[in-house]
Amino acid sequence: MSNESRKTRVDVYDTTLRDGTQREGISLAVSDKLRIALELDALGVAFIEGGWPGSNPKDAELFRRARDVAWTSASLAAFGSTRRAGVAPEDDANLVALVDSGAPVCTIFGKTSLHHVREVLRISPDANLRLIEDSVAFLVGSGRRVIYDAEHFFDGAREDERYAIQTLQAARRGGAEVVVLCDTNGGTLPWEVESRVLDVVRLVGGTVGIHAHDDAGCAVANSLAAVRAGATHVQGTINGYGERCGNANLTTIIPTLELKQGCACIREGALPNIGRVARVVAEVANLTFDEHAPYVGRSAFAHKGGVHVAAIRRSPRSYEHVDPALVGNRTRVVVSELSGRGNLLAKAEQYDVAIAEGADAAVLGELKEREAAGFAFESAEASALLMMRRKQPGYVPPFELVDYKVIVGQREGTEPFADAAIKVRVRGVVHHTAAEGNGPVSALDAALRKALVAAYPEIASIHLEDFKVRILDGRDGTSATTRVLVDHANGAERWTTVGASPSILEASLVALVDGIEHGLWLAKASRESEARTPLDVKGYEDEQSQDRLAAG
Amino acid sequence: MSNESRKTRVDVYDTTLRDGTQREGISLAVSDKLRIALELDALGVAFIEGGWPGSNPKDAELFRRARDVAWTSASLAAFGSTRRAGVAPEDDANLVALVDSGAPVCTIFGKTSLHHVREVLRISPDANLRLIEDSVAFLVGSGRRVIYDAEHFFDGAREDERYAIQTLQAARRGGAEVVVLCDTNGGTLPWEVESRVLDVVRLVGGTVGIHAHDDAGCAVANSLAAVRAGATHVQGTINGYGERCGNANLTTIIPTLELKQGCACIREGALPNIGRVARVVAEVANLTFDEHAPYVGRSAFAHKGGVHVAAIRRSPRSYEHVDPALVGNRTRVVVSELSGRGNLLAKAEQYDVAIAEGADAAVLGELKEREAAGFAFESAEASALLMMRRKQPGYVPPFELVDYKVIVGQREGTEPFADAAIKVRVRGVVHHTAAEGNGPVSALDAALRKALVAAYPEIASIHLEDFKVRILDGRDGTSATTRVLVDHANGAERWTTVGASPSILEASLVALVDGIEHGLWLAKASRESEARTPLDVKGYEDEQSQDRLAAG
Repeated sequence: MSNESRKTRVDVYDTTLRDGTQREGISLAVSDKLRIALELDALGVAFIEGGWPGSNPKDAELFRRARDVAWTSASLAAFGSTRRAGVAPEDDANLVALVDSGAPVCTIFGKTSLHHVREVLRISPDANLRLIEDSVAFLVGSGRRVIYDAEHFFDGAREDERYAIQTLQAARRGGAEVVVLCDTNGGTLPWEVESRVLDVVRLVGGTVGIHAHDDAGCAVANSLAAVRAGATHVQGTINGYGERCGNANLTTIIPTLELKQGCACIREGALPNIGRVARVVAEVANLTFDEHAPYVGRSAFAHKGGVHVAAIRRSPRSYEHVDPALVGNRTRVVVSELSGRGNLLAKAEQYDVAIAEGADAAVLGELKEREAAGFAFESAEASALLMMRRKQPGYVPPFELVDYKVIVGQREGTEPFADAAIKVRVRGVVHHTAAEGNGPVSALDAALRKALVAAYPEIASIHLEDFKVRILDGRDGTSATTRVLVDHANGAERWTTVGASPSILEASLVALVDGIEHGLWLAKASRESEARTPLDVKGYEDEQSQDRLAAG
Repeated sequence: MSNESRKTRVDVYDTTLRDGTQREGISLAVSDKLRIALELDALGVAFIEGGWPGSNPKDAELFRRARDVAWTSASLAAFGSTRRAGVAPEDDANLVALVDSGAPVCTIFGKTSLHHVREVLRISPDANLRLIEDSVAFLVGSGRRVIYDAEHFFDGAREDERYAIQTLQAARRGGAEVVVLCDTNGGTLPWEVESRVLDVVRLVGGTVGIHAHDDAGCAVANSLAAVRAGATHVQGTINGYGERCGNANLTTIIPTLELKQGCACIREGALPNIGRVARVVAEVANLTFDEHAPYVGRSAFAHKGGVHVAAIRRSPRSYEHVDPALVGNRTRVVVSELSGRGNLLAKAEQYDVAIAEGADAAVLGELKEREAAGFAFESAEASALLMMRRKQPGYVPPFELVDYKVIVGQREGTEPFADAAIKVRVRGVVHHTAAEGNGPVSALDAALRKALVAAYPEIASIHLEDFKVRILDGRDGTSATTRVLVDHANGAERWTTVGASPSILEASLVALVDGIEHGLWLAKASRESEARTPLDVKGYEDEQSQDRLAAG
């Protein structure tokens, strides 16, 4: 607590549910939005912008349902615009919808740029100032806390700084508790943000906020520069989702503010959960999570080069800007062709795979041999792990693929077809079955699952998530080695396996079989760990805590 | 020209081929690297770092092959480290490999941080300064231009700025033409970068460079801040590929420097090509292109919100920070494939394909329909061309695929097998034949060639060079649409075709058929042109020069 009190308080305003959904391809149901809002509340953000109740009935329903939630840290904010020109605030449908939403906080945006006032609103500069002031005052008079978003602030200030400042002062006169400087087009650079924020802090005072977009790749830096200049309110989205190139990425900004800029912006002790929240949001939004994202990605602390790996052993912080544990992440050593015995043993230890005395040379030998044949274990840890597990004494495979046949083709004037027949041995019993698919790989996948579901019903929760193919040396054309990477997931974890063969089907099958075997092993490990300790494991945290258990 | 001369010259140093390949999951063949290098040279970067010849035989081969290329703007750089402690420069295998590579530029990294000098190198601070100076001097004495990368510069300067500056002075004494400040761990923030660069410009002088990593999401802002403080050499990678969270993204930095910071950093007039280069690199690396990337992503100027769209109509620049045409992009309003008619006609003209009066709408319609089904013509021009050619009046296909069947499988204890049967119609005659292969695609390829060789003996000179497969929406697992890109070559030229289907075989076959048809067309065109003019056409360069001719 005493440590916290020495830090600058910065309020995080999350707009994933409103501005974030402007990203192409995102569409969230009301229940999705509630799920994300609960995660954000647990993380300890100050404000959650739920949506625009005046624009969309789904958003109005969200605010109705949010009234029954006991929020612990966050205040729900409804978004809208200042009133229309020539309409009294109490007659403006959009402002009335904000009040009716029941949200304790209303955020409204207004125009800063004279160009926009003249070209888009088509009113006088003074009329715009009155419109900003009385819109804010109406909401404050209705018992709401009001945040004012100054749209196009930086472009407007570049045109006429005096007028831009006047719009903020109008909002303040109306009773706005925060004035937020929006870089709506996302093209402003950090030093300009810093200097404008300094001006606003000096000339307007009170709580100043920043709302940045990433069109010049500087949304994070712009938000940090604003805080350095005195802003204490930062708007952004989880994973940087948003229109065009996205909004400022809170999963990057929050750790930097907390770890490098001496700020307190979320619940004390919650920082290690930020990666989990980032994954949940990606999952709910049905988007592939960016594993290279700062702080939270799986690759954020992954080391591939031999020089780096050697240096990391000697001096753990040599190639890491912060301790990964502070953000719930960990150092990973990527297993690849260049990796030595040390890397391999470190990996085995990390996953609690016991390598029998003297067997490490055999595992390493097989690793090298397979890599020479085209396998790539650096991004397929599950296959590397299986290779080690299969060398353990007493290893019994959950199933064995005996043989298979696939027929694909097309008769003139008909649709293409794909049929797979497969023979699998499970605990000594052979299951021979067949299935169709859209193509040969989906037919094989379907047949394999069909053959295994009776013995392993948990296979239903293992999904194939992604599938990548690469020809290794294009010079040999279609006879060259094909490398297939397959991603599976079970809702809590995601893993990658690899296959390589001159035949794309053979390579796919090797990777599919590994992926399913690893999934079955994870399901077994999870049942056993539940039986031992009543751990509250869910989502990504689960992988984290298993890792910690395994490492301990 | 007069306009250019008023701009600050900033040299771009691309390390996609070396630091970029440290990204998890990237592995580039020598031919991939050459292809990317040619694109970078055409774009007009000053330096292309090809690899680390002392660490890897693949990189040594690249430098051998690069000697035969007539580079137009870029100097090839070989990367390595300063010599080992206790070894004379001329006896250091790594320095000797740099000289032997034949690259005109050598870039070597050395230690800045006293902590690293003591803990990792385990030598005295003075010994490190001597080691830096004589390593640089050895390379300069061997006739090389030398760039010195000061590893961990910012961390080192934070520990002991005086010593950090001394390491740069040592490199300068040795003859380094550029000293590059590396934020190796990627955790430095923009204002610190700016202030340290100002110090180096003042205390060391000469050409100062920046090498940033994105671990705090500030690599772009850090690079821009360094230029603002006087750096005139920027290192980074296309699409920001690199270890952990990646390197500074040149596809964001270059447009910002050129359009917002008054710098000239690539070939005059080349900026609109930057998006194409970004996509080619992603395709060659077999990574999904980030469509939300600043400037170059499809979504970078896409407007989804109704308010924005209405405002854009009234005032085109309302929600765009730069004119998208400057970076070869365009405003998109709806989520549809808006390939412009003008684009298409320009392409047809470039390749001398006559589109019949009124047929352009039909071609455009088919292009959109196919793109919606998963085809990508961006990097598969031969397929786009064939689509146009097939709409020409009087078009007669050289052959038609009638039907096919492939059987692949494996019986317990035997090798996998793949048999393809194929029916092809050539000038009204049906050829029904079969062939074996290592896998289903090679069996189909073999059968197709066998069916065609009697009618088209020139097929023997057409080789399948590369083959890439991507699942478009991984979330549907094996049933998702598969996109296959196939590269063929005939010794003189190389071309790419595309196929898309839920079945990988179907998609492969579409691309194979297109690739062979285009090859037969090229053979015919070459016979006809030889009869007319003796053209000196060779390899990929030819495509480049055709592009340049078409643009002129």
